[in-house]
Order: sequence, then structure tokens, then C-alpha cells
Amino acid sequence: MKKTTPNKLKILNDPIYGFIQIPNSLIFDVIEHPYFQRLRRITQMGFSNLVYPGANHTRFHHAIGCMHLMQKAIRVLRFKQVEISDKEECGLYLAILLHDIGHGAFSHALEHSIVSGISHEEISLKFMKKLNEEFSGELTLAIEIFEGKNPRKFLGQLISSQLDIDRLDYLKRDSFYTGVTEGNISSDRLIAMMNVKNDELVIEKKGIYSVEKFLIARRLMYWQVYLHKTGLVAENILVNVLKRAKELAEKGVELYSSSALHYFLYNQINANNFTEETLEMFSKLDDYDILSAIKEWVNHDDKILSLLAKMIVDRNLLRIEMQKEAFEDSYIDKKKQKAVEKLNISKEETRYFVFTQQIRNQAYNLEKPVLILNKKGKLKDIAKASDQLNLQALTKPVVKHFICYPK
Amino acid sequence: MKKTTPNKLKILNDPIYGFIQIPNSLIFDVIEHPYFQRLRRITQMGFSNLVYPGANHTRFHHAIGCMHLMQKAIRVLRFKQVEISDKEECGLYLAILLHDIGHGAFSHALEHSIVSGISHEEISLKFMKKLNEEFSGELTLAIEIFEGKNPRKFLGQLISSQLDIDRLDYLKRDSFYTGVTEGNISSDRLIAMMNVKNDELVIEKKGIYSVEKFLIARRLMYWQVYLHKTGLVAENILVNVLKRAKELAEKGVELYSSSALHYFLYNQINANNFTEETLEMFSKLDDYDILSAIKEWVNHDDKILSLLAKMIVDRNLLRIEMQKEAFEDSYIDKKKQKAVEKLNISKEETRYFVFTQQIRNQAYNLEKPVLILNKKGKLKDIAKASDQLNLQALTKPVVKHFICYPK
Amino acid sequence: MKKTTPNKLKILNDPIYGFIQIPNSLIFDVIEHPYFQRLRRITQMGFSNLVYPGANHTRFHHAIGCMHLMQKAIRVLRFKQVEISDKEECGLYLAILLHDIGHGAFSHALEHSIVSGISHEEISLKFMKKLNEEFSGELTLAIEIFEGKNPRKFLGQLISSQLDIDRLDYLKRDSFYTGVTEGNISSDRLIAMMNVKNDELVIEKKGIYSVEKFLIARRLMYWQVYLHKTGLVAENILVNVLKRAKELAEKGVELYSSSALHYFLYNQINANNFTEETLEMFSKLDDYDILSAIKEWVNHDDKILSLLAKMIVDRNLLRIEMQKEAFEDSYIDKKKQKAVEKLNISKEETRYFVFTQQIRNQAYNLEKPVLILNKKGKLKDIAKASDQLNLQALTKPVVKHFICYPK
Amino acid sequence: MKKTTPNKLKILNDPIYGFIQIPNSLIFDVIEHPYFQRLRRITQMGFSNLVYPGANHTRFHHAIGCMHLMQKAIRVLRFKQVEISDKEECGLYLAILLHDIGHGAFSHALEHSIVSGISHEEISLKFMKKLNEEFSGELTLAIEIFEGKNPRKFLGQLISSQLDIDRLDYLKRDSFYTGVTEGNISSDRLIAMMNVKNDELVIEKKGIYSVEKFLIARRLMYWQVYLHKTGLVAENILVNVLKRAKELAEKGVELYSSSALHYFLYNQINANNFTEETLEMFSKLDDYDILSAIKEWVNHDDKILSLLAKMIVDRNLLRIEMQKEAFEDSYIDKKKQKAVEKLNISKEETRYFVFTQQIRNQAYNLEKPVLILNKKGKLKDIAKASDQLNLQALTKPVVKHFICYPK
Repeated sequence: MKKTTPNKLKILNDPIYGFIQIPNSLIFDVIEHPYFQRLRRITQMGFSNLVYPGANHTRFHHAIGCMHLMQKAIRVLRFKQVEISDKEECGLYLAILLHDIGHGAFSHALEHSIVSGISHEEISLKFMKKLNEEFSGELTLAIEIFEGKNPRKFLGQLISSQLDIDRLDYLKRDSFYTGVTEGNISSDRLIAMMNVKNDELVIEKKGIYSVEKFLIARRLMYWQVYLHKTGLVAENILVNVLKRAKELAEKGVELYSSSALHYFLYNQINANNFTEETLEMFSKLDDYDILSAIKEWVNHDDKILSLLAKMIVDRNLLRIEMQKEAFEDSYIDKKKQKAVEKLNISKEETRYFVFTQQIRNQAYNLEKPVLILNKKGKLKDIAKASDQLNLQALTKPVVKHFICYPK
Repeated sequence: MKKTTPNKLKILNDPIYGFIQIPNSLIFDVIEHPYFQRLRRITQMGFSNLVYPGANHTRFHHAIGCMHLMQKAIRVLRFKQVEISDKEECGLYLAILLHDIGHGAFSHALEHSIVSGISHEEISLKFMKKLNEEFSGELTLAIEIFEGKNPRKFLGQLISSQLDIDRLDYLKRDSFYTGVTEGNISSDRLIAMMNVKNDELVIEKKGIYSVEKFLIARRLMYWQVYLHKTGLVAENILVNVLKRAKELAEKGVELYSSSALHYFLYNQINANNFTEETLEMFSKLDDYDILSAIKEWVNHDDKILSLLAKMIVDRNLLRIEMQKEAFEDSYIDKKKQKAVEKLNISKEETRYFVFTQQIRNQAYNLEKPVLILNKKGKLKDIAKASDQLNLQALTKPVVKHFICYPK
Repeated sequence: MKKTTPNKLKILNDPIYGFIQIPNSLIFDVIEHPYFQRLRRITQMGFSNLVYPGANHTRFHHAIGCMHLMQKAIRVLRFKQVEISDKEECGLYLAILLHDIGHGAFSHALEHSIVSGISHEEISLKFMKKLNEEFSGELTLAIEIFEGKNPRKFLGQLISSQLDIDRLDYLKRDSFYTGVTEGNISSDRLIAMMNVKNDELVIEKKGIYSVEKFLIARRLMYWQVYLHKTGLVAENILVNVLKRAKELAEKGVELYSSSALHYFLYNQINANNFTEETLEMFSKLDDYDILSAIKEWVNHDDKILSLLAKMIVDRNLLRIEMQKEAFEDSYIDKKKQKAVEKLNISKEETRYFVFTQQIRNQAYNLEKPVLILNKKGKLKDIAKASDQLNLQALTKPVVKHFICYPK
Repeated sequence: MKKTTPNKLKILNDPIYGFIQIPNSLIFDVIEHPYFQRLRRITQMGFSNLVYPGANHTRFHHAIGCMHLMQKAIRVLRFKQVEISDKEECGLYLAILLHDIGHGAFSHALEHSIVSGISHEEISLKFMKKLNEEFSGELTLAIEIFEGKNPRKFLGQLISSQLDIDRLDYLKRDSFYTGVTEGNISSDRLIAMMNVKNDELVIEKKGIYSVEKFLIARRLMYWQVYLHKTGLVAENILVNVLKRAKELAEKGVELYSSSALHYFLYNQINANNFTEETLEMFSKLDDYDILSAIKEWVNHDDKILSLLAKMIVDRNLLRIEMQKEAFEDSYIDKKKQKAVEKLNISKEETRYFVFTQQIRNQAYNLEKPVLILNKKGKLKDIAKASDQLNLQALTKPVVKHFICYPK
């Protein structure tokens, strides 16, 4: 591990945790890298700020916050005699810092419109490998941990599991910035209850209520925030505006766009042709490219594009209805018919304005259980260790359907 | 309602809510009354501060906090066109302020030792009637509301129900002062979701996750805080030390005690002989009488009394074990035998040091349901309205058993 | 005042205040207007997020927060028997909501580069007048208050004075989001101490320490946050990049830019030719236009433009030194010489990279004093009422000088 | 340093800091000692809870909080390459934990009535020496640090100086529990700015505004909280009630009192006859002895004692006036005359009910300056390093006078 030169001992302010210390100069240099700095221009919650105006925090801050919680977790585990070498410590910091670096602008929306067939995790991995070259192999262990290939399973579980550091930060952070205080979780307590048994990350028994509370808070955040009606509408209009733009691009129509956005509009990018040039272009693309283009498209000749763009810019969105059952075809058709009249568009074009979708959330996944360690050293799935709160029920995915259509 | 004279416009600081305003001079005078001032000397959580050192808040502050939340609730309901007259408003303030005024020192411990066969609610009512005399009948409506006799049912439900103002304050307050942040509830949001339908207090549909969260938080507070092992031991030792003192008193043994404590030790008080003099004596009795006596009893000749007292003062308590099943007689007997040897006491006397008990908590009670109001104006029990979180499961009381014995 | 239709009773979450209620449907409609929605895309603190990564809050949220504090202030004043009519109440809400609507993208930077000779207050007024037309004169009183022309002086002082609602929100909000907890002020307490005497806004005597604390906190925020070195560098580079772009535009060089930004780059806009069309264009211009253009300019042929743009995008800024005295010419010249060599540019061109500036802050302005009301009803300037803390000293502007140059 | 046995690894909840870890088993055992447990029964702020009902926190919690901040300070200093051995670390924990152990019940009141001529610091030292015997000399270094005799001056300065850990905790804690948010200081930031130069504790230059803010916050807390009128009256009545009790005791009058209180009432204790027995008695005396006795004295035959006691119990206090100048004799005399009539007591006896006093607070003491370390490694007194805020002015003690008399 590189020695830390004094002028790189940096401290960052965080409204949530107070001060965050950058532990060494390698980490410092990674944070300074343009790839990482780009995360400053990608909001964590996309268009949720249309519902919760405080939710403008960025992926940059989330990643830094994760690193801070990782420092706490390592301190707790070492205090409990879990051995973690200096190299592993640094690997954990790098892995958690970079776990989301492949997220596109406006997060998930892009995955459904601009690029196809490649997940943000895969792109994160591409970024990490590129950085590993630049940093002469110093990220090798971090990549191994990130990929879940390190034999000490808990290292990978700290990065990705049902109770990983990522979730501990984002639930707390999203709850904080949205002002939805009920989603607040006690990251500190959950971390204080962590331990390692047979190289697996486990939670000590007296943390059982905290885990339950964490699962319930997460579920609440899903239905109240992440899947909030208005946010869903906005995100879907965004997907549609990008889809429309891409279709126009394919036809050779000219569109105001930054060079990075232009690249992704006018090329069909998927997992197979995602070259190093693509990665470089991807590293230039952020929320600013997308939203500034949409603002300009408000005045585009293409009516569909213009209408959709205007909805976002003026926050004058489609209406949305949500229910447990799928919507009947006749109902959808009625809405399409009205849209034809109202917007003076063809029936075929109504697909941009009238659409249904199914959303689901599973509060707890039995396949990768949260393990509870009792006093005798035995492990138990939380779903069985909990005395009453029917956690089994939380394993059943909740499914809802929504329909959007013009007001 | 009395006019408010300017010098009675008081504002109180509250670490939780910021500022609390005393709405009028009648309320001000009730707060100034010695009966109410006594609540300054009764902690809300008894010996929980032996576990959570921050938990020294008093019943006084809780009552004031309730009044503040009631102000918010009234503002919300009126905004939603629910008519609440000025008289009813004042009645609600008085009823919530005084709902706990009959609590004895160290709260529930006293009910099991010093007085018998009379609940703190009954004593609260006695205080309220006495105050009503002093204030020339100005508390009549408040008493009616407190007793649940007012025809507008929601008035009484704001004071006492599964989602009453009392709970909204104490859960928030206890969570705040213990530092158990996971018990924190969003009183503000729950109040914002309140409405009245057919004179019943109801919660609007979009508040459903908040109610669920509230129920889970309450359950967490029960098992993690209110029924915390160490707190349970301390409270039971307290009950035993008072029982022992009372037994000695009956035998004519002299005991250091304040005049108020003396009255309750040397007289057998129950619902039938609870006179006005008793009420006056009760109004003098607070945590200071009890704890200062126990401190003195450390040096009493009676070995049992002295041992028990010392345990509390030095926080050197009995050991406790908890489990789902009742403890077997043979196990209890073994512990008693050991106590005989260890403390050099008779088998019979071990009942002060070796004892078992059953505790239970029901997270949700179907009989007095929390009603959810959907958009079409229909009411539904939350246990049925919730889409997944098996709330039905929360209606089943959880029972646990514990045994205490000397270390 | 328009009647409030039920579906317009909106509540917004605020991480700072909890819930914010929109008081009536006129206010609701003004908030929905595209002019106001634009504030969602303008950050309150510009490039301060390069130093304080949490500081991404928008002018939209600040304006809404101000409205909330205004509701509190009106409640307090009415409680103290200050008469405020419903019309005045609504006027205050509108005036405070719209007081900053004329702010340009990245706030102050624009005023020094893109438009000239017209302040954001003047532009706010233009927006308000335009809205007043659209809303059939319902903003007339608000405009009068905003302009300080209403005879009841305290109405205007709530909008603009040394202790106005604007400051009470932005100091609290900026402190909250930056995580600089020391800048936190007790808006609640300051509002609770407000009163009106001779139609002037005054502070009651027992609020004197709170005002002192407010002045000190504001001063701290200036030097530690608003005038933070890194923020200053970034803002000045932004000004320079826009200046350079404008110079190139004047020469006819083509520049990637949105139509709104194009308008302001290729036209010379000042107070005299600020037409209704200009206002419309201004209403389209936000942070996204600016930053997305800068990102593109990184690859522009013009070396100066490209270098400056890259500094911002990669957060690889100029070095800055700050001191009490002006920098000597010889020192500046030396830095310029080095820049010539390092960047391979002409001496003349170094003005974009090597520059000095003077900053100043006056913590308290004697000319528009904060008036303290003592118990006998006398008014005193806080600078004289304070017993010790030499507030007189705070009236002396503090001046500092800085120089920027390439690393 | 003793090895830590796993079952002694304790974590305590703190509403302010979250979790506090007890670092080793020696510390654990000291905390468990009855001398230290006694601090659970002594409130930090005495009768301030009569004004700020949330202020019931104890000296126990404050001491634990100090230990937590000390852990942070040590971590920061070691990170900056200041060498602190494990033994010194433990000594710092013990010294800060025990720095206030000699405080009497209701803190300062006792020093002016029950014992005389001996400060709480001297008593703390006695306790520490006694504990050092019990713990076989393991507190020797802690005592040396506490007495300021360790050659590494910064160790002592962390315990006692103008910016010591004690103040960092109590200002934060008192501000938190009173709800006077303006007194809140950023302990975290101040600690982050600490460094050691020539074995002196210093603050790095960029912490200068934080120190200023800290001084102003402390000053605000003095005048608004610690020297709040109502608190002052209550404390002075408490002193008088104890003085009267002592006078009666000297005359042989019998008084209800615990054995510990009895000892101090019926013996004249001062620095010269403060034996080991006295220390043992002192260790039994806490808020409960005092307040429970006062409650009983309400019904004592002695009219003076009874009147004073009743004032406290019913919170029906004397009136107080405060001003910058001393009160004139004639004014005092007039008040005494009225008291004679009103209470039907002798002129001589009015001294318990009519009295004046002078209070003073010096916000900053030049003699033990807070040293600022600039980038070149030079040290400067903060009063000179600060650019504007006339800190010199803060060195002048502010003096006020008050008079109390019956309503």
C-alpha cells in the first residue's frame, strides 16, 4: 500500500456522518480520477427529486459514504478479533468506492434505452480493470473482492449481499435527503452487530430486531420513494424520450446532443461491441448531457419528442394509476383512443404516452440469507430466527401494475 | 375558555420538537399546579436509565410533548375541514396533559407493591376530578373525553387508542433519549395522515406504510428497551425491596422513609380506602422518596432488605436468563438451593432473589383496530389493508419467560 | 384569494423542516409555473459542491423553505396580536417565494459574464410582473412588498433586511447540506423572538444572544463556505470560461451551446435591451445549459477555452493563495511568466489563468440595523444593546486578497 | 494495561454520539465502581431542568461522553503522527472519566453550603487516590495527568484547558438536552483541528472560525442557560435552604435527613478535617438525599426552612431582577421591608428571601491562551490570530447583578 503523503490527508464533510477521512493516497488518487469525478454529475435518485425536492445527492457522495461505513465495519470486525490485513482493508475501500462507477446518467433509465444487454455491474468492472492498468495493478485484490471471487467470502459480502455496506449507506442517505425519516436505519448499530463466522458475514443475535427493522425500512423506501408514482412516471417518460430520440437518430434525423450522447444515440451499443472507446465515451456521459438535450428537444420538429421533452422540463407529467391486478386491454385501449384525440397522434404513436408496466419488490430473498449468530455459535437464517414478525411473508414478491396516460 | 394574559404566554424548549407553546392561561395554571409539577420528579422510564444512561426524561416532559403533538393534530384535522370547537380543543389539551398524572413513582413498580387493586388510570381520574373542583368545572369536558364518554369518538381516540397521541410522543421520546434510533417514528407524518370519518379517528391510505412502520418500531422498543433484561431485573428487585419493606412495616419494624412513603408502607391502600387524604399523600410521593429510602436501607439490620437495596444502589443486579418456554421446577429449585448457600438465607427467603416471570407483548390488537381510509371513503382494518407484511402475525402475543437468581 | 381546491392541498418533504404545506391554490399554481419549476435546475450554492459534496440543494427548495418559515413568522406575529390580513399573508408568501426567481444559472457567476448591468433582483421583478399579468393582478401586493413600497415596513423587512426570512432559511439550509454544523442557526428561536413595533420588524430583548449567534454564524459561513478557496477558484474559472466563450462568439467562432445559452453568448444583453424575449430566454437558461456546454468545450479548438473547461470538468483547478494585503505586481508578474512557459500561451492570454481579486464581507451593517425591543418598549440597535461582544467590530468590512495561477 | 476479557466489551448508547465503546476492562471496572455509579444520581445541570425540562442528564453520562471524545482525539492526534503510548491512552481515559467525580449533589450548590473551603477538584483527587489504592496503582499516570504534572503538557491540556475535552462534551451535551440548539458546537471539527506542537495542544489555522464559534457558543450558553434567571433563583434558594438547615442542626434541631446528609449537616467539614470517613460519606451523598429531605422539610416547624423548601418543591420561586449596576441599598431595603410584612418574619430573617449577588463570566482568558498553529508552524494566541471578531473584547469579564425577593 502506498505511503500517505501528508498533503493528501483529506477530510470531507458529510451532512450525515460528519467527517469522512480519506485513508491513504492511493484512495485519494482514485477519487481524483476523472472517472470517479464524473459521479459528481450523476444523481443517486434520478427524477425522485421531482417528488422529494431534497433528493439531489450524487453517486459521488454515496460512494464516499460507503467508504466511511466500510472503515467502521473494519474497525468493528478487527475489535472482534477478525483478521483483516492492510491489503484487504485497502481492497475493500476500493471495491466499495467503485462498485457503482458503471452507473449511467439518470441511473437505471439509461440501461433501458441507450445501451442494451449490458448491466451497470459489468460496466463497473470494465472501469475497474481500466483503472487497474493505470494504477499498475494496485486494484487487483479489489476486483477479486468485487467479483466475489475472494475465498474469504465475507469480503465480498461486505460489498454485495442483502445487508451490505452499499445498502447501509444508500438507505440512510436516501432517507436523509428525501426527508422520509421513517426509512432511516441505524447503520451504526447494524455494523456494531456484524461478525464473521466460517468466513461468512453474520449478525449477532441481539441485532435481530435491527435487521427486521432494516428490512421493513427498505420495503417502505421501495414503495414510498423508489417506486413513488410520480417518480415512476417521470422515469418512464425519460426512457421514452430517449427511445424516441434513438429511433429518430436511426432514421438520420439530426438531434441536439453532446458528443457523448451523440455517440450512444447514433450507435447501437451492446455487450459485444462495448470497446475501450465506448468506455471512454460512457465516462463522458452524465445527467447534464441528458437533461440539457431534453430541454432543447422541447422545440424539436418531431411532435412526439417535443411533447415528451416538455413534460419533463415543466414537470407536467402523464397521469398514473396503480393497482394490484393487470389492467384490462379494453381499459388501455380506451386510454389510447383518448390520447389519439387529445394529442392528435396516430394510434401507433400512443405507445409513448399510454403504457402499462408491472413493478415488483421482494423485501427479503431466502436464497442469500442474512445469517444470525446465536450465543452458542450457531447460524440461522433471519427468516427463521425471528420470533414472530412473519418474515417468511416478506419473501413473497409484491407485484403491482400501473398505467400511464395523458391528463 | 379563559382569556390568555400576556405574561402567561410561555414557550418551553424541547430537544425533540424545538419550541412548545402553552396555548392559554388555564393550561398554564394547570401546569403550574403542584400535582402537575410533581411529574418533574418521576422519570418516564424508571430504571431503564441503568441500561440507557440518557433515559432520564420525566413524565412532565412527556405530558408537555403530548400537548404539543395534540396542537399539530388539531391543526391538521381542522385543515381537513373537521370541526373542532375551541372548547373541545382545550378539552383535548387538558385530557392529554393529565392522562398520566396518576402514575406513581418509578411508574409501574409501585402498582405491584405499594398500592393494590387500583390502576394509574383510576388515580389519574381522581386527580382530574380534584382539579376540576379547584378550577370551577373547567375540566368537565376534558374528563368526559378522557373517560371515552364523549359522543365524538375521535376525541377520546386521540387520547387513547392504538395510534393515540400518547404513543406518538412516548415512542419518539423514549427512542430519542435512549439513543435507540431504530425506534424513532415519524409522528409528524402519522399526524399528517390523520382524518375523521363517522366520528372515528382514521388514517388515510397513503399512510399505510407509516402505520406498519410504527407498529414494528413499537415492537422493537418493547423487546429492545422496555423489556430489556437488565431493566427487568432492576424493576423486579425494586418491587421486591418495596414488598419486603411493606412486610417489615406490617410487623412494626421501623424504616427510614419520607412521610409520604411511610403512609403507603404502614397502611394497606386499595381502591376501596383510597380517600382524599390518600390522594394528597400520593401527590407527594415520587422517585426521590423511593430511591433515597432504598439508599438508606442498604444499612438496615434486615439482611434481605439490605441485600436488595444494595443491588440497586451499586447497580450490581441479579443474573437473568430469558427463553421462550417456562423454566422447569427443578431448575428453579437448583437456583434456590444455590442462593441458600451463597447468601446464607432460608429457603423461604429465596423468593426475593430467585423468581420467574412471564412477559408478553402484543404488537397489534385486532379488537380496537387502526382504521385505514381509502380514496373512495371506505374504512378497513390496517391488518387487512396492508398488502403483504403479515400484520395478522403481529396480533399474536409474544410470550417469554425469565428467571432471576444471584450471580 | 382563490379558494383552495382539495386536490391542491399539497405537502412537501423537507429534510430540514419535516413537512411543508402549500397554503392555497394560487401559491400552488405559481409553484407549478415553468418559471418557478426552472429553479429546480439551479443549485443554491453553485460550485460549492466541489468542496462540500452534499451541497446540491436547489433554489427551488430554498424558496419553498422560505415560504415555510414565513408561515411560522406570521403565526408568531399574529399570536402577539400583530394584525396581518389574509391578503397580506398571501402577499408575503408570494414575495418570498419569488424573491430569487431572477437568479441565473450558477447564480452570481452569470452576472459577471453573460449579462451585464442588471442585477438578479431586477430580473426577479421582471418575472413577478410577467406572472402578475398571467395571474390577473393577484401578485400586485406581493410586488409592492418585494419592492419595499408597502407602508407597513415590516412586511418588506421580512423579505429583505439583515434578519430576513431569506437569510434564516439559506444559512440553515446551506449549513445543513454542507455539513458545516457550526453555521447552523436557530431559525425557530429567531422567529419566536420577532415582533413588530411602529410597523418595524424588531427582535425582543431576550433574543439578543440569538442574534449575536446568528451574525457570528453568518460570518463563519462566509469565510468557511461561501468564500472557501476552492469554491472561489472554481467560480472564477467559470466566469473566465464564459467570458472567453463570449469573446469567441463575438468573433463569430462557433460554440456548442443550447439555444438559450446561444442567445446570451451571441447577443450583448444589458438592462436597456432586456426585452420580454430576453426574459423568456433567461427562463430557459439553467445550470444544465452551462455545464453541458463546458463539458463539450473541453474538446474545442480554442486552447484557452479548452484548458479552462477541462479544469472544471475534472476538478483540477488553479492554485490559489489568500492574504490580507494586496499581492505585489512583481509576484503576479512572476506567476504570469511561469504560466506563459507552462501552458505555452501568450503573456496577454495569462489573464485567464493568473488573476487577483479582492473579497470582502461585512458581518453587520449599521445602516439597516437589527432593532432590539426591550421590556419598556424602547428600540435599540443590536450593536449597542449587546453587552460585550464587540459587535461594532463586526461592522468593519473584512477584506482579503487572493491570487490564482496554474499548479 | 489489563487485557480485555470479551464479556467486558461493552457498548453504551448515547443519544448524541450513537455508540460509545468501553475500551478495556480496567476502564470497565472503574465505571462499575460504586464511586462512579454514584454519578448516575447527580444531574449535570442541577436545577436548570426547572427552566429546560429536558436537562436531566447526569454526570455519569457526561463522563462517559468525555471518554468517547477522548478516543476520537487520540485517533486524530496519532493520525497526525503524535506519539501516544498505550499507557498514556489509558491514563487519558481514566483522567477524563474521573475529572468530575468529586462533584457534590446539585453540583456547585453544595460547595457553598454543606462543605466549605474545599473544591470539587480536590475531592476528585481524593477519590482518584483512593481508587488508585484499590486498583494497585494503575491510576498513577492518570493522576499525574489530572494534576497537570506530566511533562507532556498536552496530556493535561486535553483534560483541563480553555478547549479541553470536558468543555467539548458538556457544551454539546447541555445544548442537546436543553434544546438550546444555538449552543451546539462541532466537537468533531474542533477535535479534527487539534494537533500537538512543542508538547502543547494547539489548533490548526483553518480551525480558527470554529474556535471563535466555540467561544461565542459557550458565552451564549452561560448567559442563556447556566446563568438563566430562574435557574439562578432556584440554586440560591437551594443554598439558603441548606444553610438554614445547617444552622438549625448546629442548634440541635432535628431534621429529616439521610445518614449521609446528616453527617454533613451536623458536622463542620472543611479541607482540614476531610478524612477517609468523610470521603466515604461524601460518596453516599447525591441529589436524592438533598431533594427528598427538602420535600420533607416543607412541613418542618421552622417557618424559614419550610417556606424555602416549599418554593423549590412547587417551583414557586422568588422573583428576580437583573441589571448591569449594583442595586442600591435603599431598593434592597424596601424589598426587605415588604418581605417582613408579606411573610411575617423578622428583618434579620429576610436575608434568606431578599438578597443580591454579582455574577460574572469571562468568555476568553488570555492567561491560558488557545494557540493557533499556522502553516509555517508558528503559534499565535487566538485572540491575535483572529482577523476581526474582536476577541480581545471577550477577555473582559461581563458582570451582572441580581436581586431576589418574594413575589
